[in-house]
Amino acid sequence: MNSEIRRTLEAVRAGSLSVDEALLQIKEQPFVDIGYAKVDLHRKVRQGAAEVIYGAGKTPEQIVGILNVLQEQGAGTILVTRLSSEAADFVQKYHALDYHKGARIGILGPLPSPDGLGNIVIATGGTSDIPVAEEAALTAEALGNRVVRLYDVGVSGIHRTLAHMDEIMNATVIVAVAGMEGALPSVIGGLADCPVIAVPTSVGYGASFQGLAALLSMLNSCASGVSVVNIDNGFGAGYLASMINHVAAKGEEKL
Amino acid sequence: MNSEIRRTLEAVRAGSLSVDEALLQIKEQPFVDIGYAKVDLHRKVRQGAAEVIYGAGKTPEQIVGILNVLQEQGAGTILVTRLSSEAADFVQKYHALDYHKGARIGILGPLPSPDGLGNIVIATGGTSDIPVAEEAALTAEALGNRVVRLYDVGVSGIHRTLAHMDEIMNATVIVAVAGMEGALPSVIGGLADCPVIAVPTSVGYGASFQGLAALLSMLNSCASGVSVVNIDNGFGAGYLASMINHVAAKGEEKL
Amino acid sequence: MNSEIRRTLEAVRAGSLSVDEALLQIKEQPFVDIGYAKVDLHRKVRQGAAEVIYGAGKTPEQIVGILNVLQEQGAGTILVTRLSSEAADFVQKYHALDYHKGARIGILGPLPSPDGLGNIVIATGGTSDIPVAEEAALTAEALGNRVVRLYDVGVSGIHRTLAHMDEIMNATVIVAVAGMEGALPSVIGGLADCPVIAVPTSVGYGASFQGLAALLSMLNSCASGVSVVNIDNGFGAGYLASMINHVAAKGEEKL
Amino acid sequence: MNSEIRRTLEAVRAGSLSVDEALLQIKEQPFVDIGYAKVDLHRKVRQGAAEVIYGAGKTPEQIVGILNVLQEQGAGTILVTRLSSEAADFVQKYHALDYHKGARIGILGPLPSPDGLGNIVIATGGTSDIPVAEEAALTAEALGNRVVRLYDVGVSGIHRTLAHMDEIMNATVIVAVAGMEGALPSVIGGLADCPVIAVPTSVGYGASFQGLAALLSMLNSCASGVSVVNIDNGFGAGYLASMINHVAAKGEEKL
Amino acid sequence: MNSEIRRTLEAVRAGSLSVDEALLQIKEQPFVDIGYAKVDLHRKVRQGAAEVIYGAGKTPEQIVGILNVLQEQGAGTILVTRLSSEAADFVQKYHALDYHKGARIGILGPLPSPDGLGNIVIATGGTSDIPVAEEAALTAEALGNRVVRLYDVGVSGIHRTLAHMDEIMNATVIVAVAGMEGALPSVIGGLADCPVIAVPTSVGYGASFQGLAALLSMLNSCASGVSVVNIDNGFGAGYLASMINHVAAKGEEKL
Amino acid sequence: MNSEIRRTLEAVRAGSLSVDEALLQIKEQPFVDIGYAKVDLHRKVRQGAAEVIYGAGKTPEQIVGILNVLQEQGAGTILVTRLSSEAADFVQKYHALDYHKGARIGILGPLPSPDGLGNIVIATGGTSDIPVAEEAALTAEALGNRVVRLYDVGVSGIHRTLAHMDEIMNATVIVAVAGMEGALPSVIGGLADCPVIAVPTSVGYGASFQGLAALLSMLNSCASGVSVVNIDNGFGAGYLASMINHVAAKGEEKL
Amino acid sequence: MNSEIRRTLEAVRAGSLSVDEALLQIKEQPFVDIGYAKVDLHRKVRQGAAEVIYGAGKTPEQIVGILNVLQEQGAGTILVTRLSSEAADFVQKYHALDYHKGARIGILGPLPSPDGLGNIVIATGGTSDIPVAEEAALTAEALGNRVVRLYDVGVSGIHRTLAHMDEIMNATVIVAVAGMEGALPSVIGGLADCPVIAVPTSVGYGASFQGLAALLSMLNSCASGVSVVNIDNGFGAGYLASMINHVAAKGEEKL
Amino acid sequence: MNSEIRRTLEAVRAGSLSVDEALLQIKEQPFVDIGYAKVDLHRKVRQGAAEVIYGAGKTPEQIVGILNVLQEQGAGTILVTRLSSEAADFVQKYHALDYHKGARIGILGPLPSPDGLGNIVIATGGTSDIPVAEEAALTAEALGNRVVRLYDVGVSGIHRTLAHMDEIMNATVIVAVAGMEGALPSVIGGLADCPVIAVPTSVGYGASFQGLAALLSMLNSCASGVSVVNIDNGFGAGYLASMINHVAAKGEEKL
Repeated sequence: MNSEIRRTLEAVRAGSLSVDEALLQIKEQPFVDIGYAKVDLHRKVRQGAAEVIYGAGKTPEQIVGILNVLQEQGAGTILVTRLSSEAADFVQKYHALDYHKGARIGILGPLPSPDGLGNIVIATGGTSDIPVAEEAALTAEALGNRVVRLYDVGVSGIHRTLAHMDEIMNATVIVAVAGMEGALPSVIGGLADCPVIAVPTSVGYGASFQGLAALLSMLNSCASGVSVVNIDNGFGAGYLASMINHVAAKGEEKL
Repeated sequence: MNSEIRRTLEAVRAGSLSVDEALLQIKEQPFVDIGYAKVDLHRKVRQGAAEVIYGAGKTPEQIVGILNVLQEQGAGTILVTRLSSEAADFVQKYHALDYHKGARIGILGPLPSPDGLGNIVIATGGTSDIPVAEEAALTAEALGNRVVRLYDVGVSGIHRTLAHMDEIMNATVIVAVAGMEGALPSVIGGLADCPVIAVPTSVGYGASFQGLAALLSMLNSCASGVSVVNIDNGFGAGYLASMINHVAAKGEEKL
Repeated sequence: MNSEIRRTLEAVRAGSLSVDEALLQIKEQPFVDIGYAKVDLHRKVRQGAAEVIYGAGKTPEQIVGILNVLQEQGAGTILVTRLSSEAADFVQKYHALDYHKGARIGILGPLPSPDGLGNIVIATGGTSDIPVAEEAALTAEALGNRVVRLYDVGVSGIHRTLAHMDEIMNATVIVAVAGMEGALPSVIGGLADCPVIAVPTSVGYGASFQGLAALLSMLNSCASGVSVVNIDNGFGAGYLASMINHVAAKGEEKL
Repeated sequence: MNSEIRRTLEAVRAGSLSVDEALLQIKEQPFVDIGYAKVDLHRKVRQGAAEVIYGAGKTPEQIVGILNVLQEQGAGTILVTRLSSEAADFVQKYHALDYHKGARIGILGPLPSPDGLGNIVIATGGTSDIPVAEEAALTAEALGNRVVRLYDVGVSGIHRTLAHMDEIMNATVIVAVAGMEGALPSVIGGLADCPVIAVPTSVGYGASFQGLAALLSMLNSCASGVSVVNIDNGFGAGYLASMINHVAAKGEEKL
Repeated sequence: MNSEIRRTLEAVRAGSLSVDEALLQIKEQPFVDIGYAKVDLHRKVRQGAAEVIYGAGKTPEQIVGILNVLQEQGAGTILVTRLSSEAADFVQKYHALDYHKGARIGILGPLPSPDGLGNIVIATGGTSDIPVAEEAALTAEALGNRVVRLYDVGVSGIHRTLAHMDEIMNATVIVAVAGMEGALPSVIGGLADCPVIAVPTSVGYGASFQGLAALLSMLNSCASGVSVVNIDNGFGAGYLASMINHVAAKGEEKL
Repeated sequence: MNSEIRRTLEAVRAGSLSVDEALLQIKEQPFVDIGYAKVDLHRKVRQGAAEVIYGAGKTPEQIVGILNVLQEQGAGTILVTRLSSEAADFVQKYHALDYHKGARIGILGPLPSPDGLGNIVIATGGTSDIPVAEEAALTAEALGNRVVRLYDVGVSGIHRTLAHMDEIMNATVIVAVAGMEGALPSVIGGLADCPVIAVPTSVGYGASFQGLAALLSMLNSCASGVSVVNIDNGFGAGYLASMINHVAAKGEEKL
Repeated sequence: MNSEIRRTLEAVRAGSLSVDEALLQIKEQPFVDIGYAKVDLHRKVRQGAAEVIYGAGKTPEQIVGILNVLQEQGAGTILVTRLSSEAADFVQKYHALDYHKGARIGILGPLPSPDGLGNIVIATGGTSDIPVAEEAALTAEALGNRVVRLYDVGVSGIHRTLAHMDEIMNATVIVAVAGMEGALPSVIGGLADCPVIAVPTSVGYGASFQGLAALLSMLNSCASGVSVVNIDNGFGAGYLASMINHVAAKGEEKL
Repeated sequence: MNSEIRRTLEAVRAGSLSVDEALLQIKEQPFVDIGYAKVDLHRKVRQGAAEVIYGAGKTPEQIVGILNVLQEQGAGTILVTRLSSEAADFVQKYHALDYHKGARIGILGPLPSPDGLGNIVIATGGTSDIPVAEEAALTAEALGNRVVRLYDVGVSGIHRTLAHMDEIMNATVIVAVAGMEGALPSVIGGLADCPVIAVPTSVGYGASFQGLAALLSMLNSCASGVSVVNIDNGFGAGYLASMINHVAAKGEEKL
C-alpha cells in the first residue's frame, strides 16, 4: 500500500491530482463496496493467483453477487470455500462452478499451471480427515502448486508413515491433517526438514472435544518447524503452504 | 470381603461369636483408626506385596504414625509416595527409609524378588519426564516386577523409538510417560501387542495447560490397548502395570 | 516388525532378495492401500483374533470395500464399530453382518471360543450406560473372552454393588462404565484386586458436560489399579480387557 | 425487613416519626458503615447465634475494626473465617481470639450450647480433607450444633464408610467433604435419608484441576438429596447444615 | 441397612436362618432385578412417600416395565422425571399417568396431603425458567409439601423480588431457579433466614455456556445458606427441599 | 424508587393513605403480574422511549399476552427481540408487528425521531456479523438515535477500516461487532476518541468455540474505552449505545 | 488522523513539503520511538487530559524513560497503572510520583478540576474489591471527574445497596466492581437509568476461578445498559466512565 | 533415513556387513545415549546450522553433559533455550556460553553469516512481549538469518504499525508476537504477502488466561497466511521462520 500512497502523493505534487481527489482515491480504491461486503481487489494484484470467497455465513445470493464483481474486475481463478451443496446448486445457475462436495469447495475458472518451488505433501492420519485434506489440496492446486496426497498414514501404524519417507523427505512443505490425538505432525516434523503445517480436525468423539485435543497436541509438538492453523481449516493450510512454496519465486521477483 | 462375612456368619451360627461381637468385628477389623486416618490392613493380605502411603497432604508426623501402625501389623515393604525432601528428612529420624528424591518416593523394607509374568517397559518422551517415570518404575519394582527403562525416546525423533523395538515387542505391559503433545503412547501402542498405560506429565508450557494437552491426546489415542491415568500419576501406572503383570499368577492361585 | 526386518536382511545377505526388492517389501507389505484407506494386515497375524474397522467417518461404500479386502486376506471374525443403522443396512446387502443396534457394532464371521485367563466383568452405573457397556462386551466376546454383565449397580445404591461381591472378587479384569458422577470405578476398584478399566459415558445433563464430569472423576480415582479410556469408548475398554485377559497366554507363547 | 418497614410506617402514621427520619431509619439502621465495610447488624437479631467475618481479602487492621464494632453492638460469639496465622497473631493482640490453625478459623466468645434438632455428621474422604471439614465442624459448633466427625472414610475402601452406618443413618444432616474424584457424597447420599451437603476440596493433583473434578462429580451425583457448595467452602457447608438442623426450632418459633 | 443386618444375624444365631440363606437374603432383598434395571425397593420403606423413576436414557418399554414392578410391590405415588411427550404417550397406554409437559414429569397415583413443616417457596428469575421450577414444584408436591410459586422475580428489577418479602421471610426452605447471570439465590439468600437451594438453568445464550455462568455464579454466592444442584435439576431441588421440610418430622419419629 | 417511597410516606403521614394500603402500593405498583410474567411498567416512565420484550424462551401466546398489557398501559414503541419467524407469524395475527428477519426483531408502533447527542456508528468485521449488527442498529433506532452502518470493515484488510476514518472520528459512540478473532474493537478503539461497545459474535468455526475467542480477545483489548457485552448481544449493545448517546440530554433534564 | 493526512497532503500540493518528507512525516509524527517503546503523543492532543503508562511488564528503568519523554513533550498529568511498590520506589528517585499502594497507581502532576457532566458512582460488592475500585476512582479523578464511592454494598445484603438509591439514581455513569458471584451490576443496572460498567474482580476462591465466575455472570446480566471490562481492570472502567461522562462536552466541542 | 537404510542394505548384500551388525547400526547410529538423554546427531548433518538444547526440565549438570557430547561430535553453533540465569551461571563454568537474560537463551560458538533468502521481520504488540520476540530473533540469527525488529507496534495504535509498511511489505517471513487480544498477526497478515507466524504471549491478566485469549484470537485470524505456535514459543517461531527463509536454498541443493 505504501508504494500506492507514494504514487498518489507524487501525483498531488505534480498537480495532476487534487487534494480531495487524492483523499478519495486512498479511501475508495482497493475494494468495491456492494453493501453487504467490501469486495477486495487487492489480492489479485499482489498474488497473480486465485481470488478467494469465504462462503460460510453468506447467502447464495451474496456469493453470486461477489462473483459478479470479481469477474467484472477480471479475476482469473476464483475459489469459494465452505460452500454447502445447496448453495453450490444455486451458484451453478449463474456461474460454471466446479464443485467438490467433500471439500465443500467451488472453483470458477481454469486451474493455473504449478509454478511453485517443489511439492506440497498433504498427509492425513485417517480416512475421516480426507475432506479437510482435500480442502487444503484443492486450494494449493488452485494457487499453482503440485500436491502429493498421503492419506491414512496415522501414527498408530507407524509403518504406514515410514512407507512414505521418500515423499516426506523431498517435500518443500508438508500439511499434516489429523483428528483424535493429533500426533501426525510431531512424527512427520521429526522426519522432515521442511516446514510442517498442522491442521487439527474435528474428527473424534468424547474427550476430543470437537478437535480441541488435536489442536492442543499440535500446539505442543516437540518437533521443530511445526505451526498450527484453526480446527478443520484446510483452506488456511493450503494457502499458507502455497505461500511458502512460492517464497523463492517472490524473492527473485524483488531483485 | 464376602468370604470374611461368611466366616463370621458361620461363627455366629456355631455359637462361638455373639451377634454384637459379630457386628463389631465386621465393622472394625479391616483397618486401624488412628484419628486422622483409617490405616487399611487389607492390601497386605490380598496382595502379599508392598503397602502404600500417599504422602501428599499428610504431615510428616502423620506419616510416621501410619508407618508405626503398619510395622506393628507386620507389613513387609512399605512405599511412601509424593514425599517431599523435608518430610523424608523427618521420617528418616524414626524409620530407615530409602528416599528417591526425583521420584519423591520413600521405601521402607527390602524390595521383593520379581515374580511377575514378564517385563514392564517404562518409556519416556523426554528427559523432563524421568521423575514421573521413576515413580512408576520404583513402584513396580517394590511390587515385585522386572522393569526395563527406555528414557527420552519421544516421537519427534521416531528412530529413537524404533531403536527399541525388541524391548517394546517383548514387554508384558508398557508404561508410556510423556508431556507436551503426549504422542508416545499412540506410537508405542501401534507397535506393541500388549497393554499400554499412558501417563501424561505436566512437562511443557503455554497451551500444554499443565498436562491437559497430553492428557487429552492420550485419551484420544487411535491405537488400541491404551488406557490413561491422571497427570503425573507415576505411582498409579506402576501399580496397575504390576497388577497386569501378575494377572496370570493370580489366576493360578485361584485354582 | 523387528523380526521381519531381520528376516528380510538375512534374505538379502543370502542373495535371495535384491536390495531394491527388500526396500519395497519393508514398505509395502503390512497393509493394502485402497486409496481412501491403508487396510492393516498386521493385527490378524499378531492376535489370531478379530479384525476391527472403526466405522465412524467412513462411508458405507468404504466399509464394504475394506471388508472385501479383509475377507480376501482371509480374516476370520471382523468387528465394525460405531456403525449406524443406516450404514449397517447397506453393508448387509454385501456381507452377512450380525448387527447390534444399541452397541452400534456389526460382527462378521463366527465368534471365537473363549480362550482368556478368566472372566471379564462389565458393570454399569445405570440403565442408560448399557449401550456403551454392550460395545465393550461384544468386543471382548469377539476377541475370545467370557463376559459377565452387571448392569445398573451404581454407587448411590451401594447395596446393589455389594450384592455382586462374588463376581467382582473373581474377575480377571473389570470394565466399569458410568456417566454422571462416574464414581463406580472408585468403589469397584476398592473392592477388587484386579485391573479396572473405567469408561466414562456421556450419560447425564447440565454440568456433566457430555461426560467430562465422569471422565475427570475417573482420572482422579483414589482407588489403585484404575485406568481410563475415552468417553463412550466401549470398544477400547473391551479390547484392552481382552489384552489383559490374554496376557498369560501370550507369556506362555513366548517360552 | 417487611415487618420493620411496617413498624416504621405505623410510627409515621402515629406522628411519632417524621417522614425524613423514617426514610433515614430505613436506610441506616441495619448496618454500621466504617468506611471499608458496612458491618451488618442483621444476623444477630435474626439468628440469635454467632456473627461471622469473612477474613480473606481484609487486612488484620480491618478485622480488628469490625470486631470492635460487633462487640460494641453486643455480639455474643463471633467467627472469623479464612484467617491466616499472621493475621490471627495480630488480632490476638486486641481480642481474646481462639484460633484453629488447620481450619483457619478464629472464634471470639464462648461456644453456645447445642440447640439443634439432632446430629450433624461431617465426613471426609481422606486425611487431607480434614482442614476443610474442621472449618465446617467448628462453624456448626459455634452456631449451636452437636457434630459427629467421620474422617478418612473414602469410597475406595467402602468398608470404612459402611463401618459408620449407625452415625450416617441417625444424622439430621450430613456434610460430605472430598477431593480427588469426589464420590463420597454419592455413596453417603445413597445410604442416608437426610440432606447431604457436598463440599468439594482442592485436594488432588493433575486432572483434579484444583477441585473442579470433585465439584463436577458432586453436581452430577445420582443420589437424591445432595447439594453442593463452593470448593473448600467448609464454612458455607457448616452454616447451611446448622440452618437445616434448626429448621424445626424456627418453625416452632413462628407459632 | 445396619438394623437389617443385625436382624438377619440374630435369626442366624437363633438357628431360624441358615448361613447360606442369610447371605442370599442380604444380597437380594433390597431390589428387584429386571435385567436392564435393579428396581430399588428401599426408598418406599424409608420415606413413605413417592417412588421416582429417572426417565432420561430409558426406553418407554423399560419405563413401563419398571412401573409394573413398582405397582406390584405396592408403591403409592410414582414420579417419572425427564419424560418426553412421546414416551409419555406410550406409557399412558399402560398406566393412568398424569403428564405435565413443561416440567416433563409424569405422576402415577394420588398426590399425598402436605405433611411438611412449612412452605417451600419456588422462585424464578424469568419466564423461561418456569419449566425447571415446575419440575421442582411438582416433585415437592408429590412428596407431601405445600408449595408457593414466585415466578419472574429476577434481580434486575429488584422491586419485583422485594414485593414478595412476606413469602420469602416465612418460607421453611426456598428453591431459587435462574439462568443467565444466576444472581437470584444471592439476593434471596441475603433476605431469607432459611436454606436456599439454587438451581442454575440453561436459559441464556453466548457466554452463558448452557448454564455454566449461572452455575458458577451460584457456587460463589456470598450469601450464607445457599447450596447448588446441577443445571436444570428441578427434581433434585424439589426432592432436597422436601427432605429439609420434613427434617423435624423425621426427628420426632426417632423419639 | 426512592422518591416514590417518600411520596407514599408523606401520604401516610398526611393520613390520606392507610399503613396497609401504603404497604400494598409499594409492592404492587411497578408491574402487572400476568402469572407467567411480571410486566414491568417502570422503564416507560423513566425512559420515555421503547418498551422491550425478550422473546427467547417465551411462547408466542405469552408474547401476545405481554404486548396486550403493554398496549393497555399506553406503551408507544415496543421492541420484541430474539423473535423467531414462526413466533412473529403468530404475533402478527394479533398485532401489526414490523418484523426484521435477519435481526430477529419485531417492532410495534412508530419509530421515534432521533433525539440523541450525535451518531451511533455500528461496524462489523465481516458479512456474517450483519444480523447481530442489525439487532443493535434497529434497537438504537427504536430508542431515538441516528445510526451509521459500516459493514465488512474487518482488520485483515485494514484499508477497509481506514477508509471510514471520518465516520469513526465523528461518532458519539461506536458498536464494533466481530466474530472469529474479534480484533475490530481494538483497532477502532485506537482510532476513535469515544466509547466503543464490543459485541463478539458466534461467527467462526473450530477454535472460535461459538464466539469465545472473539469474547476473550475483546475483553483483553489494549485499546482504552472498550467494553464488552455478551456474545451475539446486539440488543444490549444498541441499548447501551443509546443510553450513552442520551447521557447529555439526561443531564440537562436533571437541572 | 484523517485531518492530519489532509493537512500534509495540502502542504505537498502547495509545494511546501516534498513527497519524501511527507511520507516521513506521516510515519514518524505521532509517537517517539525509544527502542523498547513507541511513546504515543496522540492522546494528549485529543483528550487534553492525563497520559497513561501501563506499568506491568515494563522495568522501572523503562517507566522512567517513558516519563522523561512525556514530560519533555509537555504532558500535564501522567498516570502509571499496575505499578508495584518496588517499581514506584525506583521511579520516585527521578520523578515526584504520588503513589497509591492499594490501587497500584502512580500519579505525576496535579489532578485536573472535574469538568464532566455529572457524577461517576463507583460501587463494590465487598471490602476486598476496594483496590480495583480505587484504580477506577483515581483514574476517573485524574481524567477530570467527580467520583462518588459506595463500597461494600453487595447484593447478599440488598438493604445496603438500597440505602444508596439517591446516589445510584443520580449518577451519570456507574462502575460496579464485584468478585465472587458478580451480581452487583445486575441489581444496580435494574435500579439505575444510566450506563453501568461492570468490573469483575479476582476476589473469591474455588469455583470463582480467579474472577471467571464474576466475569461470566456480568456478561450474562439481564439488566440493560450493562457492559463489561476485563477482570480486575479498574483502569479500563475508570477511563471509559470518564469518556461517557465527557460525551456531552465532546459533542459541544464539535459544534 | 531412507538413504541410510539403503546404504546399509547394500553393504549387507556386498557381504561387508553382517546381518546383526546391520541391525545394530540402524538402531544405534543416529544418536548418542547418555542415560538421561539420547543426544540427537541428526540435525547437524541435515541442517548444517545450529544444534539446539531445550533447557527447561533439565538439570545444569545434564545440560553440560549434552554440550560435552555435541562438542565432541563437532557441533558448530549450539543454542540452549529456556535457560535460567542460575543454570547459565553453572554452564558458564564449563563452556564459553553467551547468555541473553531476557530471552533466556545461551549461545555457544560463533553466529553463522546470514544465508537466507531475505529478511525475517519480528514484530511485537507491546514492550512486555520483547523477551519472547528476542528468543525468536536470536534463534533466527543463530540459524543464519537477517532479522529486522519492530517492537511495540500494537494494533490499538494502528499508525505505529502502518509506519513500518516498508519493512512489512519487504519481509520474506514475519513473526508477529503479541499478548492480550493478540490482534497483531491479523492486521499484519492483511498487509503483508508473506507467511506470518503468530506467537501468542502470556502477557496480560484476568481473562487473558495466561495467553489463551491471544492464542484463540490468532487461531481464528481471518487473514490468510497466518499460522500459530505455542504460547511464548519464541524459539519455535524463529526456527520455523528460518526454515521458510531457507526453503529456496534447500530447493537448489536438491538439484
